[in-house]
Amino acid sequence: MVGVVAPAGPVDPEHLETGLGVIRGMGFEPVLGRYVNDRNNFLAGKDEDRADDLMVMFQNTDIKAIFCARGGYGVNRILPLLDPKIIRKNPKVVVGSSDITLLLIHLLQKCGLVPFHGPMVSGSFGCKPMKISKTQFRKVLVGDKEGGRLTAPQTRVLQEGTARGKLVGGCLTLLCRSLKTPYEVQTRDGILLIEDVNEPAYRIDGMLWQLKAAGKFRGVKGIVFGEMINCRLGEGLSDKLDSLFQDILPKSSIPILTNCPVGHGNEMWTLPLGVEATLDTDSQSLRLKNNGVS
Amino acid sequence: MVGVVAPAGPVDPEHLETGLGVIRGMGFEPVLGRYVNDRNNFLAGKDEDRADDLMVMFQNTDIKAIFCARGGYGVNRILPLLDPKIIRKNPKVVVGSSDITLLLIHLLQKCGLVPFHGPMVSGSFGCKPMKISKTQFRKVLVGDKEGGRLTAPQTRVLQEGTARGKLVGGCLTLLCRSLKTPYEVQTRDGILLIEDVNEPAYRIDGMLWQLKAAGKFRGVKGIVFGEMINCRLGEGLSDKLDSLFQDILPKSSIPILTNCPVGHGNEMWTLPLGVEATLDTDSQSLRLKNNGVS
Repeated sequence: MVGVVAPAGPVDPEHLETGLGVIRGMGFEPVLGRYVNDRNNFLAGKDEDRADDLMVMFQNTDIKAIFCARGGYGVNRILPLLDPKIIRKNPKVVVGSSDITLLLIHLLQKCGLVPFHGPMVSGSFGCKPMKISKTQFRKVLVGDKEGGRLTAPQTRVLQEGTARGKLVGGCLTLLCRSLKTPYEVQTRDGILLIEDVNEPAYRIDGMLWQLKAAGKFRGVKGIVFGEMINCRLGEGLSDKLDSLFQDILPKSSIPILTNCPVGHGNEMWTLPLGVEATLDTDSQSLRLKNNGVS
Repeated sequence: MVGVVAPAGPVDPEHLETGLGVIRGMGFEPVLGRYVNDRNNFLAGKDEDRADDLMVMFQNTDIKAIFCARGGYGVNRILPLLDPKIIRKNPKVVVGSSDITLLLIHLLQKCGLVPFHGPMVSGSFGCKPMKISKTQFRKVLVGDKEGGRLTAPQTRVLQEGTARGKLVGGCLTLLCRSLKTPYEVQTRDGILLIEDVNEPAYRIDGMLWQLKAAGKFRGVKGIVFGEMINCRLGEGLSDKLDSLFQDILPKSSIPILTNCPVGHGNEMWTLPLGVEATLDTDSQSLRLKNNGVS
Protein backbone atom coordinates (compact mmCIF):
# COMPACT_ATOMS: atom_id res chain seq x y z
CA MET A 1 0.00 0.00 0.00
CA VAL A 2 1.12 3.54 -0.73
CA GLY A 3 0.03 6.65 1.13
CA VAL A 4 -1.22 9.67 -0.80
CA VAL A 5 -0.94 13.02 1.00
CA ALA A 6 -1.37 16.72 0.19
CA PRO A 7 1.26 18.59 2.23
CA ALA A 8 1.07 21.81 0.17
CA GLY A 9 -1.77 23.27 -1.94
CA PRO A 10 -5.40 22.14 -2.25
CA VAL A 11 -6.13 19.21 -4.57
CA ASP A 12 -8.59 19.14 -7.47
CA PRO A 13 -10.83 16.09 -6.79
CA GLU A 14 -11.11 15.15 -10.48
CA HIS A 15 -7.36 15.29 -11.08
CA LEU A 16 -6.84 13.23 -7.93
CA GLU A 17 -9.35 10.59 -9.10
CA THR A 18 -7.62 10.37 -12.49
CA GLY A 19 -4.19 10.16 -10.85
CA LEU A 20 -5.32 7.45 -8.43
CA GLY A 21 -6.54 5.44 -11.42
CA VAL A 22 -3.12 5.82 -13.04
CA ILE A 23 -1.17 4.60 -10.02
CA ARG A 24 -3.64 1.73 -9.48
CA GLY A 25 -2.97 0.77 -13.10
CA MET A 26 0.72 0.64 -12.22
CA GLY A 27 -0.02 -1.86 -9.46
CA PHE A 28 0.02 0.47 -6.45
CA GLU A 29 -2.78 0.30 -3.88
CA PRO A 30 -3.35 3.89 -2.68
CA VAL A 31 -4.47 4.88 0.81
CA LEU A 32 -5.59 8.51 1.12
CA GLY A 33 -4.45 10.73 3.96
CA ARG A 34 -7.30 11.87 6.21
CA TYR A 35 -7.02 15.53 5.20
CA VAL A 36 -6.09 15.11 1.54
CA ASN A 37 -9.27 16.85 0.35
CA ASP A 38 -9.15 19.71 2.88
CA ARG A 39 -8.91 23.30 1.74
CA ASN A 40 -7.79 26.39 3.63
CA ASN A 41 -7.42 29.17 1.05
CA PHE A 42 -4.17 28.38 -0.80
CA LEU A 43 -3.37 25.42 1.47
CA ALA A 44 -4.75 21.86 1.60
CA GLY A 45 -6.02 22.39 5.16
CA LYS A 46 -4.33 23.39 8.39
CA ASP A 47 -0.57 23.09 8.80
CA GLU A 48 -1.05 20.69 11.74
CA ASP A 49 -3.35 18.43 9.71
CA ARG A 50 -1.10 18.30 6.65
CA ALA A 51 1.88 17.48 8.86
CA ASP A 52 -0.17 14.88 10.74
CA ASP A 53 -1.15 13.09 7.50
CA LEU A 54 2.49 12.77 6.57
CA MET A 55 3.58 11.54 10.03
CA VAL A 56 0.73 9.00 10.16
CA MET A 57 1.89 7.54 6.83
CA PHE A 58 5.47 7.28 8.11
CA GLN A 59 4.29 5.44 11.24
CA ASN A 60 1.93 3.04 9.46
CA THR A 61 4.02 -0.06 8.72
CA ASP A 62 1.60 -1.20 5.99
CA ILE A 63 2.49 1.89 3.98
CA LYS A 64 5.55 1.22 1.83
CA ALA A 65 5.78 4.54 0.05
CA ILE A 66 4.32 8.06 0.27
CA PHE A 67 3.24 9.83 -2.92
CA CYS A 68 2.45 13.54 -2.81
CA ALA A 69 -0.79 14.53 -4.53
CA ARG A 70 0.51 17.89 -5.77
CA GLY A 71 2.67 20.90 -4.99
CA GLY A 72 1.38 24.46 -5.25
CA TYR A 73 2.47 26.16 -2.05
CA GLY A 74 2.86 25.46 1.62
CA VAL A 75 5.10 22.49 2.38
CA ASN A 76 7.55 24.93 4.00
CA ARG A 77 4.98 25.66 6.72
CA ILE A 78 4.87 22.05 7.96
CA LEU A 79 8.61 21.35 8.10
CA PRO A 80 8.96 22.43 11.75
CA LEU A 81 6.03 20.12 12.62
CA LEU A 82 7.67 16.94 11.30
CA ASP A 83 9.59 14.65 13.66
CA PRO A 84 12.93 13.63 12.10
CA LYS A 85 13.43 10.90 14.73
CA ILE A 86 10.24 9.10 13.77
CA ILE A 87 11.03 9.51 10.07
CA ARG A 88 14.55 8.09 10.54
CA LYS A 89 13.10 5.04 12.29
CA ASN A 90 10.59 4.51 9.48
CA PRO A 91 12.42 5.28 6.26
CA LYS A 92 10.30 4.91 3.15
CA VAL A 93 10.01 6.12 -0.41
CA VAL A 94 8.62 9.68 -0.68
CA VAL A 95 7.90 11.11 -4.15
CA GLY A 96 7.15 14.70 -5.11
CA SER A 97 8.42 17.80 -6.87
CA SER A 98 7.71 21.54 -7.40
CA ASP A 99 6.76 23.03 -4.00
CA ILE A 100 7.54 19.60 -2.45
CA THR A 101 11.24 20.35 -3.17
CA LEU A 102 11.61 21.79 0.34
CA LEU A 103 10.24 18.58 1.89
CA LEU A 104 12.60 16.45 -0.21
CA ILE A 105 15.60 18.57 0.85
CA HIS A 106 14.55 18.24 4.49
CA LEU A 107 14.11 14.45 4.24
CA LEU A 108 17.50 14.13 2.51
CA GLN A 109 19.51 16.46 4.73
CA LYS A 110 17.88 16.09 8.13
CA CYS A 111 16.12 12.71 8.12
CA GLY A 112 18.60 10.41 6.33
CA LEU A 113 16.18 9.45 3.57
CA VAL A 114 16.62 9.08 -0.19
CA PRO A 115 13.60 11.09 -1.35
CA PHE A 116 12.45 11.00 -4.98
CA HIS A 117 12.07 13.99 -7.26
CA GLY A 118 9.29 12.81 -9.53
CA PRO A 119 5.68 12.91 -10.73
CA MET A 120 2.79 13.52 -8.36
CA VAL A 121 -0.54 11.70 -8.21
CA SER A 122 -2.85 14.60 -8.95
CA GLY A 123 -0.52 17.25 -10.32
CA SER A 124 1.40 15.01 -12.77
CA PHE A 125 -0.36 11.67 -13.34
CA GLY A 126 -3.76 13.31 -12.93
CA CYS A 127 -3.17 16.01 -15.57
CA LYS A 128 -0.53 14.85 -18.05
CA PRO A 129 0.09 11.94 -20.44
CA MET A 130 3.29 10.75 -18.67
CA LYS A 131 3.69 7.63 -20.80
CA ILE A 132 7.43 6.96 -20.68
CA SER A 133 7.54 8.39 -17.16
CA LYS A 134 5.15 5.75 -15.82
CA THR A 135 7.46 2.94 -16.87
CA GLN A 136 10.50 4.64 -15.39
CA PHE A 137 8.64 5.58 -12.19
CA ARG A 138 7.72 1.90 -11.64
CA LYS A 139 11.19 0.71 -12.59
CA VAL A 140 12.94 3.05 -10.14
CA LEU A 141 10.55 2.42 -7.26
CA VAL A 142 9.84 -1.31 -7.53
CA GLY A 143 12.26 -2.60 -10.16
CA ASP A 144 15.70 -4.05 -9.55
CA LYS A 145 18.22 -2.15 -7.49
CA GLU A 146 20.25 -1.10 -10.52
CA GLY A 147 19.70 2.49 -11.34
CA GLY A 148 20.13 2.32 -15.08
CA ARG A 149 20.72 5.08 -17.57
CA LEU A 150 18.18 7.80 -18.37
CA THR A 151 18.49 9.43 -21.77
CA ALA A 152 16.44 12.12 -23.48
CA PRO A 153 17.20 13.13 -27.09
CA GLN A 154 15.43 16.48 -26.69
CA THR A 155 18.03 17.75 -24.20
CA ARG A 156 20.50 20.45 -25.26
CA VAL A 157 24.17 20.56 -24.33
CA LEU A 158 25.06 23.91 -22.79
CA GLN A 159 28.49 22.79 -21.67
CA GLU A 160 30.12 19.50 -22.61
CA GLY A 161 31.57 17.01 -20.20
CA THR A 162 31.09 14.14 -17.83
CA ALA A 163 30.71 14.41 -14.07
CA ARG A 164 29.74 12.28 -11.13
CA GLY A 165 28.01 13.46 -7.99
CA LYS A 166 25.01 13.02 -5.74
CA LEU A 167 21.70 14.23 -7.12
CA VAL A 168 20.40 17.39 -5.41
CA GLY A 169 18.07 20.27 -6.19
CA GLY A 170 14.58 20.67 -7.60
CA CYS A 171 12.36 23.66 -8.24
CA LEU A 172 14.38 26.88 -8.49
CA THR A 173 11.85 29.03 -6.60
CA LEU A 174 12.10 26.68 -3.64
CA LEU A 175 15.88 26.33 -3.81
CA CYS A 176 15.99 30.12 -3.36
CA ARG A 177 13.25 30.02 -0.73
CA SER A 178 15.44 27.70 1.35
CA LEU A 179 18.38 30.11 1.55
CA LYS A 180 19.41 31.30 5.02
CA THR A 181 16.69 29.16 6.63
CA PRO A 182 17.29 25.97 8.67
CA TYR A 183 16.18 24.09 5.52
CA GLU A 184 18.82 25.51 3.20
CA VAL A 185 19.79 23.27 0.28
CA GLN A 186 23.35 21.90 0.24
CA THR A 187 24.66 21.65 -3.32
CA ARG A 188 28.41 21.05 -2.99
CA ASP A 189 29.73 18.03 -4.91
CA GLY A 190 26.28 17.45 -6.36
CA ILE A 191 24.69 17.07 -9.76
CA LEU A 192 22.28 19.97 -9.39
CA LEU A 193 18.72 19.74 -10.75
CA ILE A 194 17.13 23.12 -11.54
CA GLU A 195 13.63 23.49 -12.93
CA ASP A 196 10.69 25.86 -12.74
CA VAL A 197 7.43 26.77 -14.46
CA ASN A 198 5.47 29.91 -15.37
CA GLU A 199 8.18 32.33 -14.19
CA PRO A 200 9.15 35.33 -16.28
CA ALA A 201 12.75 35.23 -17.49
CA TYR A 202 13.77 38.18 -15.30
CA ARG A 203 12.73 36.27 -12.23
CA ILE A 204 14.65 33.16 -13.35
CA ASP A 205 17.63 35.48 -13.82
CA GLY A 206 17.18 36.90 -10.34
CA MET A 207 16.92 33.48 -8.75
CA LEU A 208 20.01 32.11 -10.52
CA TRP A 209 21.84 35.31 -9.53
CA GLN A 210 20.89 34.68 -5.89
CA LEU A 211 22.00 31.02 -5.95
CA LYS A 212 25.30 32.16 -7.43
CA ALA A 213 25.78 35.05 -4.99
CA ALA A 214 24.93 32.66 -2.15
CA GLY A 215 27.74 30.36 -3.29
CA LYS A 216 25.44 27.54 -4.30
CA PHE A 217 27.25 26.81 -7.58
CA ARG A 218 30.56 26.43 -5.75
CA GLY A 219 31.75 22.83 -5.90
CA VAL A 220 28.82 21.71 -8.03
CA LYS A 221 29.86 18.87 -10.39
CA GLY A 222 27.23 19.29 -13.08
CA ILE A 223 23.87 20.94 -13.76
CA VAL A 224 20.67 19.48 -15.19
CA PHE A 225 18.09 22.10 -16.20
CA GLY A 226 14.44 21.17 -16.69
CA GLU A 227 12.23 22.34 -19.54
CA MET A 228 11.35 25.61 -17.77
CA ILE A 229 7.83 25.46 -19.23
CA ASN A 230 6.40 28.92 -19.97
CA CYS A 231 9.48 30.76 -18.66
CA ARG A 232 9.94 32.99 -21.69
CA LEU A 233 12.54 35.65 -22.34
CA GLY A 234 9.77 37.92 -23.61
CA GLU A 235 7.05 38.42 -26.20
CA GLY A 236 8.24 37.27 -29.60
CA LEU A 237 11.60 36.17 -28.26
CA SER A 238 12.88 32.62 -28.21
CA ASP A 239 11.58 30.55 -25.35
CA LYS A 240 15.02 29.12 -24.91
CA LEU A 241 16.62 30.39 -21.73
CA ASP A 242 20.00 28.87 -22.60
CA SER A 243 21.57 32.26 -23.33
CA LEU A 244 20.40 33.51 -19.94
CA PHE A 245 21.86 30.43 -18.21
CA GLN A 246 25.14 30.96 -20.05
CA ASP A 247 25.24 34.61 -19.05
CA ILE A 248 24.77 34.08 -15.34
CA LEU A 249 26.46 30.72 -14.76
CA PRO A 250 30.09 30.63 -13.79
CA LYS A 251 32.47 30.03 -16.67
CA SER A 252 33.71 26.61 -15.71
CA SER A 253 34.26 23.17 -17.05
CA ILE A 254 31.27 21.45 -15.49
CA PRO A 255 28.82 19.72 -17.84
CA ILE A 256 25.41 21.36 -18.23
CA LEU A 257 22.37 19.83 -19.93
CA THR A 258 19.19 21.86 -20.51
CA ASN A 259 15.61 20.93 -21.45
CA CYS A 260 15.74 17.71 -19.43
CA PRO A 261 12.50 16.00 -18.32
CA VAL A 262 12.87 16.84 -14.62
CA GLY A 263 10.15 19.41 -14.11
CA HIS A 264 6.66 20.40 -15.08
CA GLY A 265 6.57 18.85 -18.56
CA ASN A 266 4.57 15.99 -20.07
CA GLU A 267 7.29 13.50 -19.17
CA MET A 268 9.37 13.50 -16.02
CA TRP A 269 12.21 11.40 -14.69
CA THR A 270 11.85 9.98 -11.20
CA LEU A 271 15.20 10.67 -9.54
CA PRO A 272 16.50 9.47 -6.17
CA LEU A 273 18.07 12.48 -4.41
CA GLY A 274 21.31 11.75 -2.61
CA VAL A 275 22.14 8.85 -4.96
CA GLU A 276 25.32 9.10 -7.01
CA ALA A 277 24.72 9.80 -10.68
CA THR A 278 26.91 10.33 -13.73
CA LEU A 279 25.96 13.16 -16.04
CA ASP A 280 27.31 12.67 -19.56
CA THR A 281 26.54 15.26 -22.23
CA ASP A 282 27.87 13.09 -25.11
CA SER A 283 25.14 10.55 -24.58
CA GLN A 284 22.73 13.18 -23.17
CA SER A 285 22.23 10.92 -20.21
CA LEU A 286 22.14 10.58 -16.47
CA ARG A 287 23.25 7.19 -15.12
CA LEU A 288 22.12 6.32 -11.60
CA LYS A 289 24.44 4.20 -9.45
CA ASN A 290 21.43 2.52 -7.86
CA ASN A 291 17.71 3.09 -7.51
CA GLY A 292 17.95 4.49 -3.99
CA VAL A 293 15.37 2.11 -2.53
CA SER A 294 16.71 0.20 0.47
CA MET B 1 21.47 69.47 -10.71
CA VAL B 2 20.21 65.94 -10.10
CA GLY B 3 21.23 62.84 -12.01
CA VAL B 4 18.60 60.51 -13.41
CA VAL B 5 19.71 56.91 -14.00
CA ALA B 6 18.13 53.58 -14.93
CA PRO B 7 20.07 50.91 -13.02
CA ALA B 8 17.41 48.20 -13.42
CA GLY B 9 14.69 47.70 -16.09
CA PRO B 10 14.16 49.57 -19.38
CA VAL B 11 12.41 52.93 -19.20
CA ASP B 12 9.28 53.99 -21.09
CA PRO B 13 10.26 57.27 -22.85
CA GLU B 14 6.83 58.87 -22.35
CA HIS B 15 6.70 58.08 -18.65
CA LEU B 16 10.24 59.41 -18.29
CA GLU B 17 9.29 62.65 -20.08
CA THR B 18 6.28 63.10 -17.81
CA GLY B 19 8.35 62.35 -14.73
CA LEU B 20 11.10 64.76 -15.75
CA GLY B 21 8.43 67.46 -16.09
CA VAL B 22 7.22 66.71 -12.58
CA ILE B 23 10.66 66.97 -10.98
CA ARG B 24 11.45 70.13 -12.96
CA GLY B 25 8.20 71.52 -11.58
CA MET B 26 9.55 70.78 -8.09
CA GLY B 27 12.64 72.86 -8.84
CA PHE B 28 15.11 70.10 -9.71
CA GLU B 29 17.27 70.37 -12.81
CA PRO B 30 17.65 66.83 -14.18
CA VAL B 31 20.71 65.49 -16.01
CA LEU B 32 20.14 62.18 -17.76
CA GLY B 33 22.57 59.31 -17.52
CA ARG B 34 24.17 58.40 -20.84
CA TYR B 35 22.51 54.99 -21.03
CA VAL B 36 19.14 55.84 -19.45
CA ASN B 37 17.24 55.00 -22.65
CA ASP B 38 19.13 51.79 -23.44
CA ARG B 39 17.35 48.48 -23.63
CA ASN B 40 18.72 44.96 -23.38
CA ASN B 41 15.71 42.63 -23.10
CA PHE B 42 14.47 43.07 -19.49
CA LEU B 43 17.37 45.37 -18.57
CA ALA B 44 18.04 49.06 -19.33
CA GLY B 45 21.20 48.18 -21.25
CA LYS B 46 24.36 46.32 -20.31
CA ASP B 47 25.32 45.79 -16.66
CA GLU B 48 28.59 47.71 -17.20
CA ASP B 49 26.77 50.70 -18.71
CA ARG B 50 24.11 50.89 -16.01
CA ALA B 51 26.82 50.71 -13.35
CA ASP B 52 28.89 53.30 -15.18
CA ASP B 53 25.98 55.77 -15.31
CA LEU B 54 25.62 55.52 -11.56
CA MET B 55 29.36 55.90 -10.85
CA VAL B 56 29.62 58.89 -13.21
CA MET B 57 26.83 60.63 -11.28
CA PHE B 58 28.59 59.96 -7.98
CA GLN B 59 31.84 61.44 -9.32
CA ASN B 60 30.30 64.53 -10.92
CA THR B 61 30.47 67.22 -8.23
CA ASP B 62 27.74 69.27 -9.93
CA ILE B 63 25.27 66.47 -9.26
CA LYS B 64 23.75 66.88 -5.80
CA ALA B 65 21.36 63.91 -5.87
CA ILE B 66 20.67 60.78 -7.93
CA PHE B 67 17.10 59.83 -8.76
CA CYS B 68 16.35 56.39 -10.18
CA ALA B 69 14.06 56.37 -13.21
CA ARG B 70 12.35 53.10 -12.32
CA GLY B 71 12.78 49.61 -10.86
CA GLY B 72 11.68 46.49 -12.68
CA TYR B 73 14.58 44.08 -12.44
CA GLY B 74 18.33 44.05 -12.54
CA VAL B 75 19.95 46.35 -9.98
CA ASN B 76 21.35 43.23 -8.28
CA ARG B 77 23.52 42.56 -11.36
CA ILE B 78 25.41 45.86 -11.06
CA LEU B 79 26.18 45.77 -7.32
CA PRO B 80 29.57 44.03 -7.78
CA LEU B 81 30.47 46.70 -10.37
CA LEU B 82 30.04 49.67 -8.01
CA ASP B 83 33.04 51.08 -6.14
CA PRO B 84 32.17 51.65 -2.47
CA LYS B 85 35.34 53.75 -1.96
CA ILE B 86 34.35 56.28 -4.59
CA ILE B 87 30.77 56.35 -3.28
CA ARG B 88 31.98 56.93 0.30
CA LYS B 89 34.08 59.86 -0.88
CA ASN B 90 31.15 61.38 -2.76
CA PRO B 91 28.11 60.82 -0.57
CA LYS B 92 24.89 62.13 -2.05
CA VAL B 93 21.16 61.63 -1.95
CA VAL B 94 19.98 58.54 -3.87
CA VAL B 95 16.24 57.88 -4.25
CA GLY B 96 14.50 54.74 -5.43
CA SER B 97 12.33 51.78 -4.44
CA SER B 98 10.98 48.43 -5.68
CA ASP B 99 13.87 46.61 -7.42
CA ILE B 100 16.15 49.48 -6.32
CA THR B 101 15.77 48.14 -2.76
CA LEU B 102 18.96 46.07 -3.22
CA LEU B 103 20.92 49.17 -4.24
CA LEU B 104 19.61 51.12 -1.23
CA ILE B 105 20.60 48.30 1.13
CA HIS B 106 24.06 48.19 -0.44
CA LEU B 107 24.52 51.99 -0.16
CA LEU B 108 23.35 51.92 3.47
CA GLN B 109 25.31 48.90 4.65
CA LYS B 110 28.47 49.00 2.56
CA CYS B 111 28.90 52.61 1.44
CA GLY B 112 27.96 54.62 4.52
CA LEU B 113 25.14 56.52 2.81
CA VAL B 114 21.64 57.43 3.93
CA PRO B 115 19.70 56.29 0.84
CA PHE B 116 16.06 57.23 0.33
CA HIS B 117 13.19 54.83 -0.16
CA GLY B 118 10.86 56.89 -2.29
CA PRO B 119 9.21 57.72 -5.61
CA MET B 120 11.02 57.31 -8.92
CA VAL B 121 11.09 59.69 -11.86
CA SER B 122 9.49 57.49 -14.49
CA GLY B 123 7.94 54.68 -12.45
CA SER B 124 6.25 56.88 -9.82
CA PHE B 125 6.14 60.56 -10.84
CA GLY B 126 5.77 59.56 -14.50
CA CYS B 127 2.74 57.31 -13.94
CA LYS B 128 0.89 58.33 -10.78
CA PRO B 129 -0.75 61.43 -9.29
CA MET B 130 1.62 61.63 -6.27
CA LYS B 131 0.23 64.93 -4.98
CA ILE B 132 0.95 64.80 -1.25
CA SER B 133 4.12 62.82 -1.98
CA LYS B 134 5.64 65.60 -4.06
CA THR B 135 5.46 68.03 -1.16
CA GLN B 136 6.95 65.54 1.26
CA PHE B 137 9.63 64.45 -1.25
CA ARG B 138 10.78 68.06 -1.60
CA LYS B 139 10.54 68.70 2.12
CA VAL B 140 12.70 65.69 3.03
CA LEU B 141 15.31 66.29 0.33
CA VAL B 142 15.70 70.05 0.33
CA GLY B 143 13.73 71.26 3.34
CA ASP B 144 15.06 71.89 6.82
CA LYS B 145 17.01 69.21 8.60
CA GLU B 146 14.13 68.31 10.88
CA GLY B 147 12.54 65.06 9.88
CA GLY B 148 9.00 65.79 10.96
CA ARG B 149 6.10 63.45 11.47
CA LEU B 150 4.45 61.48 8.68
CA THR B 151 0.86 60.41 9.25
CA ALA B 152 -1.60 58.53 7.08
CA PRO B 153 -5.20 58.02 8.25
CA GLN B 154 -5.72 55.08 5.88
CA THR B 155 -3.23 52.89 7.77
CA ARG B 156 -4.49 49.98 9.87
CA VAL B 157 -3.12 48.99 13.28
CA LEU B 158 -2.19 45.31 13.29
CA GLN B 159 -0.42 45.51 16.63
CA GLU B 160 -0.47 48.52 18.95
CA GLY B 161 2.57 50.22 20.38
CA THR B 162 5.38 52.68 20.02
CA ALA B 163 8.92 51.84 18.98
CA ARG B 164 12.09 53.57 17.92
CA GLY B 165 14.67 52.24 15.51
CA LYS B 166 16.55 52.89 12.30
CA LEU B 167 14.54 52.64 9.11
CA VAL B 168 15.38 49.55 7.02
CA GLY B 169 13.75 47.38 4.38
CA GLY B 170 11.85 47.92 1.17
CA CYS B 171 10.34 45.60 -1.40
CA LEU B 172 9.72 42.13 0.06
CA THR B 173 10.79 40.25 -3.08
CA LEU B 174 14.17 41.96 -2.91
CA LEU B 175 14.57 41.56 0.84
CA CYS B 176 14.27 37.80 0.23
CA ARG B 177 16.48 38.00 -2.86
CA SER B 178 19.26 39.44 -0.67
CA LEU B 179 19.35 36.50 1.73
CA LYS B 180 22.63 34.56 1.96
CA THR B 181 24.25 36.89 -0.59
CA PRO B 182 26.95 39.50 0.19
CA TYR B 183 24.12 42.07 -0.04
CA GLU B 184 21.92 40.56 2.68
CA VAL B 185 19.67 43.03 4.49
CA GLN B 186 20.36 43.65 8.18
CA THR B 187 17.12 44.24 10.08
CA ARG B 188 18.06 44.00 13.76
CA ASP B 189 16.97 46.99 15.89
CA GLY B 190 15.23 48.47 12.88
CA ILE B 191 11.80 49.75 11.96
CA LEU B 192 11.26 47.37 9.05
CA LEU B 193 9.51 48.54 5.87
CA ILE B 194 7.86 45.73 3.87
CA GLU B 195 6.00 46.32 0.65
CA ASP B 196 5.32 44.58 -2.66
CA VAL B 197 3.05 44.65 -5.69
CA ASN B 198 1.28 42.15 -7.98
CA GLU B 199 2.31 39.10 -5.98
CA PRO B 200 -0.21 36.36 -5.20
CA ALA B 201 -0.88 35.94 -1.48
CA TYR B 202 0.76 32.50 -1.34
CA ARG B 203 4.00 34.04 -2.52
CA ILE B 204 3.78 36.85 0.05
CA ASP B 205 3.24 34.11 2.64
CA GLY B 206 6.30 32.22 1.37
CA MET B 207 8.49 35.31 1.43
CA LEU B 208 7.44 36.31 4.96
CA TRP B 209 8.01 32.69 6.03
CA GLN B 210 11.54 32.87 4.61
CA LEU B 211 12.35 36.18 6.32
CA LYS B 212 11.11 34.68 9.58
CA ALA B 213 12.97 31.37 9.15
CA ALA B 214 16.10 33.37 8.25
CA GLY B 215 15.82 35.21 11.57
CA LYS B 216 15.10 38.57 9.98
CA PHE B 217 12.28 39.47 12.41
CA ARG B 218 14.57 38.87 15.38
CA GLY B 219 15.32 42.12 17.18
CA VAL B 220 13.09 44.16 14.87
CA LYS B 221 11.50 47.07 16.76
CA GLY B 222 8.46 47.67 14.59
CA ILE B 223 7.03 46.87 11.16
CA VAL B 224 5.51 49.16 8.53
CA PHE B 225 3.67 47.32 5.75
CA GLY B 226 2.90 49.02 2.44
CA GLU B 227 -0.38 48.82 0.57
CA MET B 228 0.59 45.54 -1.13
CA ILE B 229 -1.26 46.64 -4.28
CA ASN B 230 -2.85 43.73 -6.14
CA CYS B 231 -1.56 41.11 -3.70
CA ARG B 232 -4.90 39.40 -3.11
CA LEU B 233 -5.74 36.43 -0.95
CA GLY B 234 -7.81 35.02 -3.80
CA GLU B 235 -10.81 35.54 -6.05
CA GLY B 236 -13.72 36.95 -4.12
CA LEU B 237 -11.73 37.15 -0.90
CA SER B 238 -10.82 40.33 0.90
CA ASP B 239 -7.79 42.06 -0.50
CA LYS B 240 -6.59 42.67 3.02
CA LEU B 241 -3.56 40.57 3.80
CA ASP B 242 -3.65 41.51 7.49
CA SER B 243 -4.83 38.03 8.55
CA LEU B 244 -1.92 36.50 6.63
CA PHE B 245 0.55 38.88 8.32
CA GLN B 246 -0.91 38.03 11.72
CA ASP B 247 -0.66 34.30 11.02
CA ILE B 248 2.99 34.30 10.04
CA LEU B 249 4.45 37.10 12.15
CA PRO B 250 5.90 36.31 15.53
CA LYS B 251 3.56 36.87 18.45
CA SER B 252 5.31 39.76 20.07
CA SER B 253 4.75 43.19 21.40
CA ILE B 254 6.21 45.19 18.54
CA PRO B 255 3.96 47.75 16.85
CA ILE B 256 2.81 46.91 13.31
CA LEU B 257 1.06 49.30 10.91
CA THR B 258 -0.31 48.07 7.58
CA ASN B 259 -1.51 49.84 4.41
CA CYS B 260 1.10 52.57 4.75
CA PRO B 261 2.11 54.69 1.73
CA VAL B 262 5.57 53.16 1.32
CA GLY B 263 5.19 51.15 -1.84
CA HIS B 264 3.61 51.05 -5.26
CA GLY B 265 0.54 53.17 -4.49
CA ASN B 266 -0.60 56.58 -5.70
CA GLU B 267 1.11 58.27 -2.76
CA MET B 268 4.45 57.33 -1.29
CA TRP B 269 6.51 58.55 1.63
CA THR B 270 10.14 59.41 0.97
CA LEU B 271 12.05 57.78 3.82
CA PRO B 272 15.74 58.10 4.72
CA LEU B 273 17.03 54.58 5.45
CA GLY B 274 19.35 54.33 8.43
CA VAL B 275 17.77 57.34 10.11
CA GLU B 276 16.15 56.82 13.49
CA ALA B 277 12.37 56.91 13.41
CA THR B 278 9.59 56.48 15.94
CA LEU B 279 6.65 54.34 14.89
CA ASP B 280 3.50 55.14 16.88
CA THR B 281 0.30 53.26 16.14
CA ASP B 282 -1.89 55.57 18.29
CA SER B 283 -1.22 58.50 15.98
CA GLN B 284 -0.70 56.19 12.93
CA SER B 285 2.56 57.96 12.37
CA LEU B 286 6.25 57.68 11.72
CA ARG B 287 8.39 60.47 13.16
CA LEU B 288 11.83 60.96 11.64
CA LYS B 289 14.65 62.14 13.88
CA ASN B 290 16.13 64.11 10.99
CA ASN B 291 15.87 64.24 7.23
CA GLY B 292 19.05 62.23 6.63
CA VAL B 293 20.59 64.80 4.28
CA SER B 294 24.04 65.83 5.43
